[in-house]
Amino acid sequence: MPNIKVFSGSSHPDLAQKIVDRLGIDLGKVVTKKFSNMETCVEIGESVRGEDVYIVQSGSGEINDNLMELLIMINACKIASASRVTAVIPCFPYARQDKKDKSRAPITAKLVANILSVSGADHIITMDLHASQIQGFFDIPVDNLFAEPAVLKWIKENIPDWKTSIVVSPDAGGAKRVTSIADRLNVEFALIHKERKKANEVASMVLVGDVKDRTAILVDDMADTCGTICHAAEKLIEAGAVKVYAILTHGIFSGPAISRINNACLEAVVVTNTIPQERHMQDCPKIQCIDVSMMLAEAVRRTHNGESVSYLFSNVPY
Amino acid sequence: MPNIKVFSGSSHPDLAQKIVDRLGIDLGKVVTKKFSNMETCVEIGESVRGEDVYIVQSGSGEINDNLMELLIMINACKIASASRVTAVIPCFPYARQDKKDKSRAPITAKLVANILSVSGADHIITMDLHASQIQGFFDIPVDNLFAEPAVLKWIKENIPDWKTSIVVSPDAGGAKRVTSIADRLNVEFALIHKERKKANEVASMVLVGDVKDRTAILVDDMADTCGTICHAAEKLIEAGAVKVYAILTHGIFSGPAISRINNACLEAVVVTNTIPQERHMQDCPKIQCIDVSMMLAEAVRRTHNGESVSYLFSNVPY
Ligand SMILES: Nc1ncnc2c1ncn2[C@@H]1O[C@H](COP(=O)(O)O)[C@@H](O)[C@H]1O
Ligand SMILES: Nc1ncnc2c1ncn2[C@@H]1O[C@H](COP(=O)(O)O)[C@@H](O)[C@H]1O
Repeated sequence: MPNIKVFSGSSHPDLAQKIVDRLGIDLGKVVTKKFSNMETCVEIGESVRGEDVYIVQSGSGEINDNLMELLIMINACKIASASRVTAVIPCFPYARQDKKDKSRAPITAKLVANILSVSGADHIITMDLHASQIQGFFDIPVDNLFAEPAVLKWIKENIPDWKTSIVVSPDAGGAKRVTSIADRLNVEFALIHKERKKANEVASMVLVGDVKDRTAILVDDMADTCGTICHAAEKLIEAGAVKVYAILTHGIFSGPAISRINNACLEAVVVTNTIPQERHMQDCPKIQCIDVSMMLAEAVRRTHNGESVSYLFSNVPY
Repeated sequence: MPNIKVFSGSSHPDLAQKIVDRLGIDLGKVVTKKFSNMETCVEIGESVRGEDVYIVQSGSGEINDNLMELLIMINACKIASASRVTAVIPCFPYARQDKKDKSRAPITAKLVANILSVSGADHIITMDLHASQIQGFFDIPVDNLFAEPAVLKWIKENIPDWKTSIVVSPDAGGAKRVTSIADRLNVEFALIHKERKKANEVASMVLVGDVKDRTAILVDDMADTCGTICHAAEKLIEAGAVKVYAILTHGIFSGPAISRINNACLEAVVVTNTIPQERHMQDCPKIQCIDVSMMLAEAVRRTHNGESVSYLFSNVPY
């Protein structure tokens, strides 16, 4: 049987290390750097012939550099005779560019799916895709893990009055995600409808549901410039909420995100480590981080052993 | 019959403008920028339905950003029903990573070929590929133009004693390129053999051929960190050459290139504008630039009209 080999791209070495620690193995040897003309250079430092290879690279930071590095690592392992190459992409890049929503808009998420496949990826492990439909952009298996079990656990352990809280979607598109969490917590839910005028800008907001005298928990898949959640928090406080938490899987925090959160009436902004959070947490004491490495590690272990991954959709492994 | 539409990526707008000026048309409307999380955003500003689209993007500067931008532009045009999309890539990115020259080395040039095809490119126009074999990495037509006719013209117009000069390859790999130029000029040629120890570093050099009392013209496909040509120039002067010119198609000039040239015994370093040269020429008075936009424009015109492109292999169009 082939061995597991886990390699880390340069986007998130800390997460890759946590994954191999949980698997009880060492990281595969690889050097990733740039030639002086800015071309990416990858040197796989150990044999992968016949092995079951996992490459951990998130769609964060310098997205295009990290994506290209991932493609080159996949290519290098594939042409070095790896038996299978799985790209572990905790935060999938370009996930929001997933439909032709304007004339002549690119569907870059589909392009990313195609270039991952053509570079030699046999399997994708990712988490909380912005739209589950992106799985259908691939002709290879995609395991889209849910952070939900870890989020539920965090809520129960960290929000004292969670039993009387209300879960709120800051966006009609997120209603399904939020109702699922509300059901599992057995609490009510509310919804904010926003009219988006331009990318990263937010216009008027309408709240549906009663948040008066309750702790509100905003839930969404990503925190990017954070205009949406900061406005939503304001709206919820105006409507009588006593406290507002925001819980989001992918903590991108680009542009004015940190200063917006610092100035917003948010108790805490809780994200996972699908993207590195050390610097964000240093810059903003309200940001807290849920470790999801055990879910990714368990998905890798189960994939390698040919066991079912669906256990992870409702359970947090140890 | 479909119209020509030429769009410019952000790597080299000046060259794209020169190409459309020579074609007597306007550049297609496109906005390329970055979202705040560093994802590339492309908005094609005019209809391309049924049209013959050319996208000009060089493999220079932020190579990965520019490559990804090119892929997204191709995808956007393709799914907006362009009848054909041609990528005009004056300097092909990752061309030096074209073989598995170490254990587990990626063949990134092949990867680039695959991702261009899968993004929807129907045709590639490029210039002086580092290895002509890269054409075979594609299953779509590739027109690999030669800068040679423009280089010959420059030599005849700018080197007074060219008839008694000697053309020198700084590298055994470039012997073929150099013998072709020597034949066309009807002059002799010489060759320097170098032992490369590490990427971008140069070890001992052996000169084959007699350069004594002659003007030597070093010819190669690219000037990157310029260690090779600066050492070669020294070697040639030591061997009795009176003057040394260096003529190279792609002027990358990364890392210590400019300071090396400033300190080297080179009369001039002549490159083409497959890569932007304004800043390089400001920083280094020895750098001169040959405009090749008319060759690219003529290749676009001929491709569009279904005429032969091979005329350009031996002639400089007006
Ligand atoms: N990286 C990005 N940052 C901000 N907006 C984006 C990004 N990528 C795509 N978009 C836009 O976000 C919208 C899709 O978001 P959604 O409606 O939440 O799926 C589209 O209008 C996209 O053009
Ligand atoms: N961008 C780059 N900068 C410097 N060296 C490179 C680059 N890309 C590839 N190489 C190396 O250049 C060598 C191939 O160059 P060549 O022998 O001239 O075809 C290989 O050893 C590559 O690893």
